Amino acid sequence: MVIGHECAGIIEETGSEVKDLVPGDRVALEPGISCWRCDLCKEGRYNLCPDMKFFGLPPFHGSLARQIVHPAYLCFKLPDNVSLEEGALCEPLSVAVHACRRGNISPETNVLVMGAGPIGLVTLLAARAFGAPRIVNVDVDGNRLSVAKELGADGVVQVSTNMQDIPKEVETICNVMGAKVDVSFDCAGLSKTMSTALSVTRAGGKVCLVGLGHNEMTVPLTPAAAREVDVIGVFRYKNTWPLCIELLRSGKIDVKPLITHRFGFSQKEIEEAFETSAGGGNAIKVMFNL
Amino acid sequence: MVIGHECAGIIEETGSEVKDLVPGDRVALEPGISCWRCDLCKEGRYNLCPDMKFFGLPPFHGSLARQIVHPAYLCFKLPDNVSLEEGALCEPLSVAVHACRRGNISPETNVLVMGAGPIGLVTLLAARAFGAPRIVNVDVDGNRLSVAKELGADGVVQVSTNMQDIPKEVETICNVMGAKVDVSFDCAGLSKTMSTALSVTRAGGKVCLVGLGHNEMTVPLTPAAAREVDVIGVFRYKNTWPLCIELLRSGKIDVKPLITHRFGFSQKEIEEAFETSAGGGNAIKVMFNL
Amino acid sequence: MVIGHECAGIIEETGSEVKDLVPGDRVALEPGISCWRCDLCKEGRYNLCPDMKFFGLPPFHGSLARQIVHPAYLCFKLPDNVSLEEGALCEPLSVAVHACRRGNISPETNVLVMGAGPIGLVTLLAARAFGAPRIVNVDVDGNRLSVAKELGADGVVQVSTNMQDIPKEVETICNVMGAKVDVSFDCAGLSKTMSTALSVTRAGGKVCLVGLGHNEMTVPLTPAAAREVDVIGVFRYKNTWPLCIELLRSGKIDVKPLITHRFGFSQKEIEEAFETSAGGGNAIKVMFNL
Amino acid sequence: MVIGHECAGIIEETGSEVKDLVPGDRVALEPGISCWRCDLCKEGRYNLCPDMKFFGLPPFHGSLARQIVHPAYLCFKLPDNVSLEEGALCEPLSVAVHACRRGNISPETNVLVMGAGPIGLVTLLAARAFGAPRIVNVDVDGNRLSVAKELGADGVVQVSTNMQDIPKEVETICNVMGAKVDVSFDCAGLSKTMSTALSVTRAGGKVCLVGLGHNEMTVPLTPAAAREVDVIGVFRYKNTWPLCIELLRSGKIDVKPLITHRFGFSQKEIEEAFETSAGGGNAIKVMFNL
Repeated sequence: MVIGHECAGIIEETGSEVKDLVPGDRVALEPGISCWRCDLCKEGRYNLCPDMKFFGLPPFHGSLARQIVHPAYLCFKLPDNVSLEEGALCEPLSVAVHACRRGNISPETNVLVMGAGPIGLVTLLAARAFGAPRIVNVDVDGNRLSVAKELGADGVVQVSTNMQDIPKEVETICNVMGAKVDVSFDCAGLSKTMSTALSVTRAGGKVCLVGLGHNEMTVPLTPAAAREVDVIGVFRYKNTWPLCIELLRSGKIDVKPLITHRFGFSQKEIEEAFETSAGGGNAIKVMFNL
Repeated sequence: MVIGHECAGIIEETGSEVKDLVPGDRVALEPGISCWRCDLCKEGRYNLCPDMKFFGLPPFHGSLARQIVHPAYLCFKLPDNVSLEEGALCEPLSVAVHACRRGNISPETNVLVMGAGPIGLVTLLAARAFGAPRIVNVDVDGNRLSVAKELGADGVVQVSTNMQDIPKEVETICNVMGAKVDVSFDCAGLSKTMSTALSVTRAGGKVCLVGLGHNEMTVPLTPAAAREVDVIGVFRYKNTWPLCIELLRSGKIDVKPLITHRFGFSQKEIEEAFETSAGGGNAIKVMFNL
Repeated sequence: MVIGHECAGIIEETGSEVKDLVPGDRVALEPGISCWRCDLCKEGRYNLCPDMKFFGLPPFHGSLARQIVHPAYLCFKLPDNVSLEEGALCEPLSVAVHACRRGNISPETNVLVMGAGPIGLVTLLAARAFGAPRIVNVDVDGNRLSVAKELGADGVVQVSTNMQDIPKEVETICNVMGAKVDVSFDCAGLSKTMSTALSVTRAGGKVCLVGLGHNEMTVPLTPAAAREVDVIGVFRYKNTWPLCIELLRSGKIDVKPLITHRFGFSQKEIEEAFETSAGGGNAIKVMFNL
Repeated sequence: MVIGHECAGIIEETGSEVKDLVPGDRVALEPGISCWRCDLCKEGRYNLCPDMKFFGLPPFHGSLARQIVHPAYLCFKLPDNVSLEEGALCEPLSVAVHACRRGNISPETNVLVMGAGPIGLVTLLAARAFGAPRIVNVDVDGNRLSVAKELGADGVVQVSTNMQDIPKEVETICNVMGAKVDVSFDCAGLSKTMSTALSVTRAGGKVCLVGLGHNEMTVPLTPAAAREVDVIGVFRYKNTWPLCIELLRSGKIDVKPLITHRFGFSQKEIEEAFETSAGGGNAIKVMFNL
């Protein structure tokens, strides 16, 4: 099995019916091929298609390869000022963009982001691009929060992993926000992050569950529901590549600071790359360049 | 403290600026007075007003009284064919109507109702009025499910209180529904009912949390979010009385079968009424008539 | 060119990958094949696909034929209690269902239908199925209005073709409705019908433009916009066949009274059928049976 | 009758129940007092309240005065870096913000603004703040378009007043936009501007009617509806002051360039101010300072 689903590349060959791409075009690839026959595809929620063929999801090979065959309509041309590396980052950015859409982020939405890992950071960037006036990032790791700060978070809060600390951390988050939390993104997906998000979000707000940490969660769902704080599921993305590319092109989002390491594609470098990525340290996004 | 918030009555006297009501008018009362000054009131979500003055919520007296002073715009005239008792049931019915609105129930929505107590039953009635093609009720109590059946449930499923049984109960619910579950209403609000609802609802569907059983819940929130099953909070109601009265007037909803007991307003009868209501048995709604 | 786009039939043969249909199955056909590659398809508005291949729209042949090749996912199985004729009427009914969805019809929506021709009548039926409490039909033709009345209109108003009469007709419509008009469907699409609809619809309501009478219209758009009466376009349909079939199966909608004439498929009968349909008279829907 | 409804000022005195304001506070005033009793107020569309008491709308005096009595909840405190003049411009900016909300402007929405008068210009500014990636302004007046360019329009198109020119102007607008027009704002409200907007907006897009030029319009409504281009009414605003003030405070919007003339409040200066404003010339916004 080949893994990998974040990629961009150069067109080598096109099918006879392809009109919009020619060999040599630089493209970012949307990794999932949906069926376009089921109810969910037809109603525009193709990210939920039960027959999705997704890069790296068995039995489908992923994109960590030198060559890939992929439908033309899922290959999106990159403008001159957007690199292949940035193109590859359209994938995680797409998760963030889809989350911002589901959360209805606008210039009226103060945003809390739980987690400052790669997904938390792209969510911060996307929320800013959608106009969020104030964004606060929360994490257990001070280094990550420094990155969030550099990427433009209005405030950061370092928290513990202890459930007992939630009440006082909620208070701190409110103070750092200095305003109501309209929408929270839980980019960790743990009982603690979700409990914090549910507690801190204003009546009538939303908590978008993006991270997939815990399967089962113990959370104060009822008091949140009694304030009509809705929990919005976020799964992958749909129709996001054109917007991501436009946001990169216009400079409204800069994902380059997320790329902390680069490797070639030899066996040795590949191994090193995975160690770097897994090693924690300060790796955010680790890139392979052919 | 006077308790009570489900009531209807007869206008005795009106203020000098009241134009639409005269003494003798029979009216149902919406029990909450919101501030109309806060952001939530202004944006039309007055049910979430932090300054709500609500019947029976300290320090505000409730409606279990012979006389009440209440703003005219919260007193809704009853048509001739709607009794005061039915008028009083506009309150629980309002919860159900608000839940159906938040769940966006229509002729395209197959509905699961977890719980067949009073709120579960009015939710069944409201979902039917909103056009739901199939409605299945779930409860631990066979008697309640018989009532649900009589009130028009397309199917009922009796379940245990054992978390271990969820997988097989999910299967049974699917079979009884004979279709996808588009929207679930959890009218109990327990870890088990919520876990069942989250598991059984289709990708892209909604679980509306109406009941307030458990404060903290242990639930499989992440797998649900990964299918974009949203959890929608439901708190009280807003702008529901006119619709409830119209549904009762037109006969689209009949709440009379929910009234199982009637009492007068003497000290002795009041005590008896509360015992009846608390006693479980087959009491659904217990009415006081002056 | 073969014309026709309202049809149902019996499966003769299926492709090797078709799983849900077998020869002998009775099916209703959705007539448009969209591209599933463009932005509109991907976001769930495939009815607006610029590359739609639609029955009878040049250069694509229509369905007035003994045999048709059509994608399986656009063939919808009919239940035993729904006839082929009713199946064929899923097409016009789909227009009405799509209009009701766009107009957000519910038990809270009083509906005005301008026009009582075939589309006006199916709109009446669909609005009722979506729960509309009061529906008033308007037409210049008394016979058509009688049919509307028989099909369940709560009130009918016969109007002139004279623009001068709008003010007094608006008043009559309001009286017959006896309530605010929340949503109007203009199933004629003429300057006069649209002007009437724009004038009579309540502040914050909607006018759905379904009919395609006049290309250019002279209408009081500004005063309507100043009451935030939105004009909602309605073009064909999407994802409507399953709902239409369910509404027919359950008996919530009965389209049989719309079928006023039936013909065989000989040359002579075909000519007669078109004369009948064009002749005005009391023809609503004219059916061919093979 | 005192006219005027765009104003800001300094609190002189407060009622006994006012908690959030004290004498000396600088505030911008929302000019309409709605009833909070009607259906539209209750559902959050108070801008459509039929009993609105609005500055300068007979019989209610306007704000062109040295002192005004106004409800505290409609007085919004200005931050130190927002001047009274900018505070007064929250009123026209509110129209634009409300229009952007109704048009659902986001980083995915290419925007066309018909008209580059005061409302067209604030709409340009607001659409930018809502994230619109490309905004094109259209007007008959080259000077106004120069201002639009300076305020950040990505492109401008000068048009005629001749209906015959629409087809070629539509083509020019498309070229200048270089992308699909997702949402158009007609800030003029004339047959020609509306016809242009309806023709140029993409299938599935929206035309927001903001200007109130012509009462009756002759427009190609049917072809637009057949592409599901919706016409969205925009009337005044609701809940906009806090957002406007935040946009001014953060510098996301700068309204200062719109203030072209300033006058004192003597009889002579007042007359001069009205002449300046009416005179056309290059006056955009004319301010009175006490």
